Amino acid sequence: MKQETSQTTQKTNKGIKKIGVLTSGGDAPGMNAAIRAVTRSAIAHNLEVIGIHHGFKGLIENEFTPLTSSGVSGILQNGGTILKTARSREFLTEEGRAKAYQNLVNAGINAVVVIGGDGSFTGALVFSKEFDIPFVGIPATIDNDIFGTDYTIGYDTALNTVVQAVDKIKDTAASHGRVFFIEVMGREAGLLALNGGIAVGAEVILIPESNTEHQAFDRFISKGYKRKKTSGIVVIAEGEEMGGALKLAKKAEQENPDLDIRVSILGHMQRGGNPTAQDRVAATKMGVAAVDAILDDQKSIMVGLRYGKIVHVPFNKAVKLNHSIDQDLLEIQRLITI
Amino acid sequence: MKQETSQTTQKTNKGIKKIGVLTSGGDAPGMNAAIRAVTRSAIAHNLEVIGIHHGFKGLIENEFTPLTSSGVSGILQNGGTILKTARSREFLTEEGRAKAYQNLVNAGINAVVVIGGDGSFTGALVFSKEFDIPFVGIPATIDNDIFGTDYTIGYDTALNTVVQAVDKIKDTAASHGRVFFIEVMGREAGLLALNGGIAVGAEVILIPESNTEHQAFDRFISKGYKRKKTSGIVVIAEGEEMGGALKLAKKAEQENPDLDIRVSILGHMQRGGNPTAQDRVAATKMGVAAVDAILDDQKSIMVGLRYGKIVHVPFNKAVKLNHSIDQDLLEIQRLITI
Amino acid sequence: MKQETSQTTQKTNKGIKKIGVLTSGGDAPGMNAAIRAVTRSAIAHNLEVIGIHHGFKGLIENEFTPLTSSGVSGILQNGGTILKTARSREFLTEEGRAKAYQNLVNAGINAVVVIGGDGSFTGALVFSKEFDIPFVGIPATIDNDIFGTDYTIGYDTALNTVVQAVDKIKDTAASHGRVFFIEVMGREAGLLALNGGIAVGAEVILIPESNTEHQAFDRFISKGYKRKKTSGIVVIAEGEEMGGALKLAKKAEQENPDLDIRVSILGHMQRGGNPTAQDRVAATKMGVAAVDAILDDQKSIMVGLRYGKIVHVPFNKAVKLNHSIDQDLLEIQRLITI
Amino acid sequence: MKQETSQTTQKTNKGIKKIGVLTSGGDAPGMNAAIRAVTRSAIAHNLEVIGIHHGFKGLIENEFTPLTSSGVSGILQNGGTILKTARSREFLTEEGRAKAYQNLVNAGINAVVVIGGDGSFTGALVFSKEFDIPFVGIPATIDNDIFGTDYTIGYDTALNTVVQAVDKIKDTAASHGRVFFIEVMGREAGLLALNGGIAVGAEVILIPESNTEHQAFDRFISKGYKRKKTSGIVVIAEGEEMGGALKLAKKAEQENPDLDIRVSILGHMQRGGNPTAQDRVAATKMGVAAVDAILDDQKSIMVGLRYGKIVHVPFNKAVKLNHSIDQDLLEIQRLITI
Repeated sequence: MKQETSQTTQKTNKGIKKIGVLTSGGDAPGMNAAIRAVTRSAIAHNLEVIGIHHGFKGLIENEFTPLTSSGVSGILQNGGTILKTARSREFLTEEGRAKAYQNLVNAGINAVVVIGGDGSFTGALVFSKEFDIPFVGIPATIDNDIFGTDYTIGYDTALNTVVQAVDKIKDTAASHGRVFFIEVMGREAGLLALNGGIAVGAEVILIPESNTEHQAFDRFISKGYKRKKTSGIVVIAEGEEMGGALKLAKKAEQENPDLDIRVSILGHMQRGGNPTAQDRVAATKMGVAAVDAILDDQKSIMVGLRYGKIVHVPFNKAVKLNHSIDQDLLEIQRLITI
Repeated sequence: MKQETSQTTQKTNKGIKKIGVLTSGGDAPGMNAAIRAVTRSAIAHNLEVIGIHHGFKGLIENEFTPLTSSGVSGILQNGGTILKTARSREFLTEEGRAKAYQNLVNAGINAVVVIGGDGSFTGALVFSKEFDIPFVGIPATIDNDIFGTDYTIGYDTALNTVVQAVDKIKDTAASHGRVFFIEVMGREAGLLALNGGIAVGAEVILIPESNTEHQAFDRFISKGYKRKKTSGIVVIAEGEEMGGALKLAKKAEQENPDLDIRVSILGHMQRGGNPTAQDRVAATKMGVAAVDAILDDQKSIMVGLRYGKIVHVPFNKAVKLNHSIDQDLLEIQRLITI
Repeated sequence: MKQETSQTTQKTNKGIKKIGVLTSGGDAPGMNAAIRAVTRSAIAHNLEVIGIHHGFKGLIENEFTPLTSSGVSGILQNGGTILKTARSREFLTEEGRAKAYQNLVNAGINAVVVIGGDGSFTGALVFSKEFDIPFVGIPATIDNDIFGTDYTIGYDTALNTVVQAVDKIKDTAASHGRVFFIEVMGREAGLLALNGGIAVGAEVILIPESNTEHQAFDRFISKGYKRKKTSGIVVIAEGEEMGGALKLAKKAEQENPDLDIRVSILGHMQRGGNPTAQDRVAATKMGVAAVDAILDDQKSIMVGLRYGKIVHVPFNKAVKLNHSIDQDLLEIQRLITI
Repeated sequence: MKQETSQTTQKTNKGIKKIGVLTSGGDAPGMNAAIRAVTRSAIAHNLEVIGIHHGFKGLIENEFTPLTSSGVSGILQNGGTILKTARSREFLTEEGRAKAYQNLVNAGINAVVVIGGDGSFTGALVFSKEFDIPFVGIPATIDNDIFGTDYTIGYDTALNTVVQAVDKIKDTAASHGRVFFIEVMGREAGLLALNGGIAVGAEVILIPESNTEHQAFDRFISKGYKRKKTSGIVVIAEGEEMGGALKLAKKAEQENPDLDIRVSILGHMQRGGNPTAQDRVAATKMGVAAVDAILDDQKSIMVGLRYGKIVHVPFNKAVKLNHSIDQDLLEIQRLITI
C-alpha cells in the first residue's frame, strides 16, 4: 500500500481542503470527462469537491452540490455537462461577484476549477483580482481557438461530427450531381471548417482567417465545377465575412444557374455527442493537472496542452487566438482539389 | 452441384434475356444494396444486366453500362446510388418516352427495374401503357409513404440519422436549458418525425397528418416547459401546416420570451449515410423479388413488403399514402411526455 | 384540459395502485426505454411505480426503489438497464418465491412488469400460479427468438452492431485478401447471423436452424473462394452445430492451406450500445401496452408486436421459438453470393 | 491563373516524371486518404502516378496501374487500401529486389512512395542501398509506435474503435455486475491500450511497456472490485507479458471465484472502419509532404509529424519505438480509478 501511495504522488496543501468545479460558456463534449477527472483526482488528494451548477450564475445563486467518486461514475462518455452551463450578467457586476465570494466562503471552498472558454477565464480573472480565492481554468470549446494551448476540449468530437455529417451529404450530392454549401460552427475561428473541409475533400473552404479562397470560390462557381466534377462540397465557417451559407448560395445561383445548389447548416448538433477518445484523454489529463495546479498554489492560470505536455498559461494570455491559421493546410487543400 | 441448382430455383423465361436497372427520384440509403441484389440475382438466372444512369433521363440519353457481379461488389454498405439519379422533364413527353423505348430496343433490353418513389412508378406506368417493355418497381424513399408496402428502402437509415443527430442536440439542450425546434424531412408524410420524436423523447411532435398536437404545442410553449423540465425538444415535419421550424420558433419566442429557443434543420444529411441492417436486408429481398417478378412475366407492379413477406402491388395503387398515421403512437407520445 | 384527458384515455383499476418493474436475464439495448415507458405511462394513469433491482434476485432480497418521471429522464438512449439484471437460483425454490411474494405484499405492489426473455417469463408463470400478484412480460433479448411476437427489444441494435463491426473487418479482409470467420451471438437462434450475414454480403452463413449451408461452406473452403474473390466473410452463429468459429477455422486451414484465415468473435459488445430508433420505439410501445394490460386485469401474458400491432401472448406460449427461420433469406443468400 | 500557380508553389524536378505508390504491411484506416493525397499532389506537380498493388509483392510481380485524379475520388473516407497490401518473402532476396528494380525501370518510375510501418521502411532502405530509385515513406500503423513521428496513420481511428466497442461492453458489464477483460491490439506497443483504457475509464490497464500495473491488477482481482464497484473493465494489450486476456481471466477466476469475469478480444475490427477526421487530415498532410520530398530529391526518409509540423526522418532511424510510454498517463489512471 505504501508503494502505491508513493507511486501516485499524493499531494497535500494545508490551505486547500475543499474545491469547487463549474462549467461555463458554450458546452463542449468532454466537459463531463473533465469534471470526473477533477473530482476523482481531488478526492485522491483528500480534498472535498463541490459541483457548482450553471456556471457563474450558480456561484451567485448558491447552486452547490457535493460531488463524490461514484457520483461522477458513468459520465465519462456522455456529451454535455452534468453541472449545466449558463451565461450570467450578474457576475459582470461587482455586487454579483461579492455575492459569489460570500457563497464560496460560506461553503468553505478554497479554490475553483473553471471549465470553459476565454470569456469564462476573463470572468475568473476579474474575480481573482478582487477576492482571495484562486481560480484555475480548463480550456473547453469546440472552436479550439484559445491562445496558449494546442487543444481545447470538444474540438475533436465536433470535428468528427462535421465529417460524419458531410460524409452523408456527399452521398446524396454525388447521386444527384449537386453542390452543397455547408455551414459549420466557428464565428471567429475557422479551424473546424478548415480541418473538416480537408477531411471530407471539400472543393472550397471559406474561413474568417483567410480571403485567398474567395477567388477559388468564384472560379468554382463560374466554371471549375462543370468541367471535371459532377458534384461538390463548399465548407463555410459561420463567421466567414462573405456571409453565411444561405447568402453565398443565393449569390452563386444567380451567377451560375446551371448549378444545382443546396444548403445545409449543421448547427447545434456540433456541440453534442459522445466525446471521442482524444477529447476524453485530453479532458482527463487537464482535469488532473488543474487539481495539481491548485495544490501547487497556482492561480489565475489555465492548464493547457502544448506538444502533448501540460502547460500553465496566465488567464490574461489565454484569450481568443488572433486567427493564426495553418497556411500549409490551405495550400494543401488548393493543391489536391483538382 | 445439381442439388444447389434446385435449391436456388434458377428460373428461365424465354422472352427475358437482358434487363435494365435504374434509380429515380430522391436518393435513399439502400439503393445500392438493391442494385447489387438485382444484378446478382439476374446474373444467377443467366440474364444480362444493364445499368442505366441518371434515371429516366439516362433512358432517353442512352446512358447504358453493363453491370457485372464484381462491378457491384463493395457497394452494399454505401449510401447514395452508383447509378445516380435525376429528374427528367423530357420523359413527361411522348417524344421523350419514344426515344427511351428506341434506346431500350436497340440495347436489347427486355425489362426494366425502377428503384424509386411513387413519381417514378407513375412515369413507368405511363411508359408501360405505350410500349411493350415491362417495368417492375422497388420502393425506395426515406419517407416510407407508399401505399401497398409496409416498408420503403432508406426509411430506417434516415430515422436513425434523425435520432443520432437529436441525441447530440439533446446534450447541448440539457446543458443550457434550451428548447430546440428540430425540422426533419417529410413534406407530406410525418413518419420520420413521429417515430423519430418518440425515439428521442420529444416533448411535442408536429406532423402533417394530425393537428391534435397543435394544442400540446401551445401548452408546451405557454407553460408546460417551465414547470417540470429545464430543456425540451420539439420535432417538426417539414410539411407541417403551421409552418417550418423557423416560423414556429419565432412565434413561440414572441409568446413566451422566457424560453431560450434554438432551431435546427437537419436537412439533406437525412438522405445519405451507410444503410442500416434493416435497409440492406429489405433492399436485398426486394431486389431479388423484382427479378423474380420479371421472370414471372409480371409488369407495371411494385414489389413490396407486407408483414415481412414480398407482395406485388400494381403501379396505379402504389401511390403516396393519403396520410394514415398510427394514432396509437401519437397517444403514446402524449401519455409518456410528462 | 378535459379534452386532453379524454385523448389519452386515462385508465383506472381499483385493484391496481402500485406496480413493480424489473429486468431479468441477459440485458438488451432498449430495456431502459421500456422501463421509462412503463414508469411514465403508469404515472400518467396515477399509479405508483417501484423499480426492482437485479431481477428476481432483487424481488427476494427486497431491492425496491420508487421510480419517478424525472428519475427515468435521460435513459431512453442508453444501453444496459438502470435496474440491473441477475440470475437467481433462489427464485427457483418455493421458499425464494414465498419471500418474494411477502416483499411485494409488504411494499403494497399489486402487479409486476417483467422485462426479459422466455426464462424470465417461465419464472413469472410459476410465481403467478402460486400467488395472486399478476405478472405481465415485455420481450427483450437480442436473439429475437420468442414465440408469439415478431420483435424482441434489443434485436435491431445488436444486428446493427454486428453489421458495423463486420463492415470494418471487411476493409481489412479486402486489403489483405483474407477470409474471416466471424462468430455472432445466438446459441439457439440464427436470426442475428442470418440477417447480419445478408446485410454484410457474407459468402457463407452458418446457423443452427439449417444445415444446408454446410455444403456451401465446404465448397467455399475447397475452391469457391480462389476463383473469383480475393477475400471473404463467413458468418457463424454461436450455436452452430459444426462448432464455433475457431474450430471451423482450424478445419478449414487444414483443408485448404492456401487460404489466409482469421477469426473474430464479436462477443459481448453485441449486448450493449445506444439502442436504435426501432428498439426505442418498440420498447416504448410495449412499455405502454404492459401497463395497459395490467389495468385491464391481464396476467401471465407477454405483450408482443405482430405486424406492428400489440398482441397479448400467454406466458406458457411465449417460449423460445423452435427454430423456424425464413428459408427465403437463405435462398436469397445463395443466389446473390456469386 | 498565374496567381494561383504561385500560390500553390508548383514544383518541378527534371529527374522525376513518374512516381509509384504502394501500401505495405498491416492495413490502417487512412491509407486511402494518403494514396489520394500522393496521387493528386503529384498530378498537380505534373507527375504521372502509378499504383503498385499488393506492396512489395506487386513490385516484383509487376502489378502496376496508372492512378488518376478521378480514380482516387471517393476513397478518402474508406478504410482499408485500394492498392491492397501483402507480405513478400521474395523481396527479402536479392533476386526479388532485382526483379522489382527492373519492373520500375521498365515502367519509367523514378521514385516510390511507401505507405506502411517500420518493416516496410526497412525493406525500402535495403532496396535503396542497392538501386538508384529513391523511396520515401509515410508512416501508417494503428500502433503509433514508430520513432521520429508523433503520429502514424490509423491510430486515431483504431483508438476510437476500441473506445466505442468498450463503451458498449460497459453497458452490459454494469447491468450484470461483471468484470470484462478486454484485449486490444498492440503486440509490442501499449498506446492503444493505455489511451483506450483512460478513455473508457478502465479499472486496470496492462501494457508491455510497464509492469507496475501488475500489482494494481492483483489488488483489483483480490479485493478492490468488491468494495466499491459492481463492475469493471481491465484493458490488456495483446503483447502484455503476463499473457493474453484469456489466460489472465482464467488466473483471476481461480484467485477470486466471486468475480463474474468475461473476456472480449476486439480483434481485427480495430484495423478497419472509416478513418476519423484526424487520420484523414494527417494522411493528407503526409501524402502531400511525401511528393514534396521526392521533388526535393530526398530519399530513404519517412515524412512524419512532430508537434503538428512535417519532419523528415531517415529510414534507419524510423524503427519501432523502444517502448517509451507517457508515464504521466499511467499515474493519472491510478489516481482517478477509485
